[in-house]
Amino acid sequence: MKAMALKEALDQVRATTPLLHCITNYVTVNDCANAVLGCGGSPIMSDEVLDVEDITTICGGLVLNIGTLNANTIQGMRKAASRATELGHPIVLDPVGAGASALRTETASELLDEYGVSIIRGNMSEVKALAGASSSTRGVDVDPSDAVSDENLVASAQFAKGVAARTGAVVAITGVIDIVADAAHAFAIRNGSPLMGKITGAGCMLSCITGAYAAANPGSLLEAALAAVAGMGVCGQIAAARMEPADGNGSFRTYLLDAIYNLQGDVLEQRAALDKI
Amino acid sequence: MKAMALKEALDQVRATTPLLHCITNYVTVNDCANAVLGCGGSPIMSDEVLDVEDITTICGGLVLNIGTLNANTIQGMRKAASRATELGHPIVLDPVGAGASALRTETASELLDEYGVSIIRGNMSEVKALAGASSSTRGVDVDPSDAVSDENLVASAQFAKGVAARTGAVVAITGVIDIVADAAHAFAIRNGSPLMGKITGAGCMLSCITGAYAAANPGSLLEAALAAVAGMGVCGQIAAARMEPADGNGSFRTYLLDAIYNLQGDVLEQRAALDKI
Amino acid sequence: MKAMALKEALDQVRATTPLLHCITNYVTVNDCANAVLGCGGSPIMSDEVLDVEDITTICGGLVLNIGTLNANTIQGMRKAASRATELGHPIVLDPVGAGASALRTETASELLDEYGVSIIRGNMSEVKALAGASSSTRGVDVDPSDAVSDENLVASAQFAKGVAARTGAVVAITGVIDIVADAAHAFAIRNGSPLMGKITGAGCMLSCITGAYAAANPGSLLEAALAAVAGMGVCGQIAAARMEPADGNGSFRTYLLDAIYNLQGDVLEQRAALDKI
Repeated sequence: MKAMALKEALDQVRATTPLLHCITNYVTVNDCANAVLGCGGSPIMSDEVLDVEDITTICGGLVLNIGTLNANTIQGMRKAASRATELGHPIVLDPVGAGASALRTETASELLDEYGVSIIRGNMSEVKALAGASSSTRGVDVDPSDAVSDENLVASAQFAKGVAARTGAVVAITGVIDIVADAAHAFAIRNGSPLMGKITGAGCMLSCITGAYAAANPGSLLEAALAAVAGMGVCGQIAAARMEPADGNGSFRTYLLDAIYNLQGDVLEQRAALDKI
Repeated sequence: MKAMALKEALDQVRATTPLLHCITNYVTVNDCANAVLGCGGSPIMSDEVLDVEDITTICGGLVLNIGTLNANTIQGMRKAASRATELGHPIVLDPVGAGASALRTETASELLDEYGVSIIRGNMSEVKALAGASSSTRGVDVDPSDAVSDENLVASAQFAKGVAARTGAVVAITGVIDIVADAAHAFAIRNGSPLMGKITGAGCMLSCITGAYAAANPGSLLEAALAAVAGMGVCGQIAAARMEPADGNGSFRTYLLDAIYNLQGDVLEQRAALDKI
Repeated sequence: MKAMALKEALDQVRATTPLLHCITNYVTVNDCANAVLGCGGSPIMSDEVLDVEDITTICGGLVLNIGTLNANTIQGMRKAASRATELGHPIVLDPVGAGASALRTETASELLDEYGVSIIRGNMSEVKALAGASSSTRGVDVDPSDAVSDENLVASAQFAKGVAARTGAVVAITGVIDIVADAAHAFAIRNGSPLMGKITGAGCMLSCITGAYAAANPGSLLEAALAAVAGMGVCGQIAAARMEPADGNGSFRTYLLDAIYNLQGDVLEQRAALDKI
């Protein structure tokens, strides 16, 4: 992956202001909307089955985040995903808490199987649950035994490539070390900050940003996911560097949004710590 | 409009702490609640059809924001609007995304036609869609071709007055230049900051603040809307002036809430850039 | 109550990272999640009846907050409460707006009567409504005539002990002076800041933090509630001390989350202003 591709992917978001349809949980939805605006997109949230078809139609991409599923929202997700698939819009699936409940695991799996999901973005426990490969869980956090490390990096990359091959989606598994892979290539990204796990929504925001990048770069989904994931990691580092002694996760959240808003392509290029595995 | 009327409208909110019933979208609801508290009101959020009648009854005003409509919420909106109309409470309608989907356009139109809406607060694309005058849309943002400018200011004011005449509501169309009108008078407001379009919820917050102003000044709805809209613009300018180089839309959101909280009547009076058209 | 017990309760949260199932309103849910993370817990939000049983099962405690009740959520609350009761998990009930509508009063009462509620956390108007002792209300704020003061402190403590005796729950009534009581003991806490009433969600955040403390200290629920309530008050004071002239409730919210994140047991011990009544 040439660094230039990351910059181009980012610049394309800011140049085109893609409309992004987000069906996402009510916990972090405000941060998701501000993150999409900050990265250069324009978010619309809509989950009602009677509304989603019209909204998806005017957008350039769709994000499905199952963080606070309910029966009505599932209907909305299906209808939106069906329409987005029909229109060839990129779909990002964030399987929040897959493995933590049957409803989450089954809904995420159904969405993946039935519709044209372009990118899966989750932590390793969630992606394993989605792949039928694990039953351990720490709720919405990664189970420590699943975390990607230098020791299991090659195996983790193989796993990600396997999921990509089976599903046809780009797979973005984020954690201390992020992995982004399609069926043929896998990359490790070593940006980010431990503080990102101390706020709610860093993963949800990233999934929405990934949706904006994909909507602006529909022909280069691997590059779009790499730029979004590396960019979020760089923003986490920039935000962490602003922390003062009295600051905590309240300030970090603000700084992270600020960093997303201010991130420029050349900074992303210089700071992205990205290796082919 | 004498500047003093703006100060009086603001002071009346802080003096009476009006209870405000908000049925609003889950994206920006937290900022809406903090904005209402900041301007001097007391918000209650309730959308369940079994709950809304009791809640509206103890409040002094109602805000209906269709940003994340669903079938249940629509039922709640109808029941609350019916009760508020019966009680003569001011109702503010925010037609978020009208024009972007049939459900949104139809629901907003129905609420406007069937209940005693006192103030409509939206961007020009939304108000045009509500008035049956346009089909262009940029989702929840104004379509550039609809934006109020010096060139189309008189025509825009005429349009706003026409909508006010037909509906009996005060019309507040916000953008780079804001227009606030009743059937007989129209005003242009040139406060605000481009940063307000870079956060989610500036419009939703304004609609809720307008509801608080209307609830505290039920006999002077035009003045209430003018004070709320001009006040929000002034707050946007105050917030923008606090921005440091590393700040982005995360910090701007915080600064905007801070400015709403600290806004005093004399500052509003001095800084409101308000012209009769 | 020895101060050391407060420190131990706090340290236990940070040492064990309890998973906490929160069914809470969509207004303040983001702040609740960040507050739980900040105090050392791990929150999961889930309200769908098909999801809650699995989620409660993997957690160590449950919070039921009725701030934006709807018919579906009530079903979810019942199922989650039933399962948590079965498993012996601590349940915190936050009766937001009890007294303001029949639905809220009845739902809160039913949850209290039918399931094993461990801790009730509300303002005095809400707890009175729950106890069938009052019909006055200021929506989601305490009615001034209900506020705990030096004048009515002994009577208020008696009332709290009475509710605790009848329900078997620890009762935490928060306001200018907080009261925390079980059937045998009552304590007054004089920490906090008036700014806590100027943001939405200080009470909701406290209920979730209380849930995290209870989940980490299931055998010492009175101490858990005391540590959570006193800790929140200390955090309010720390946050208030950071306020600059241009700051308002936007910044205060951030500072409050920061303080929760940074609170250490020895600071809690030194600053908790706690008296046996």
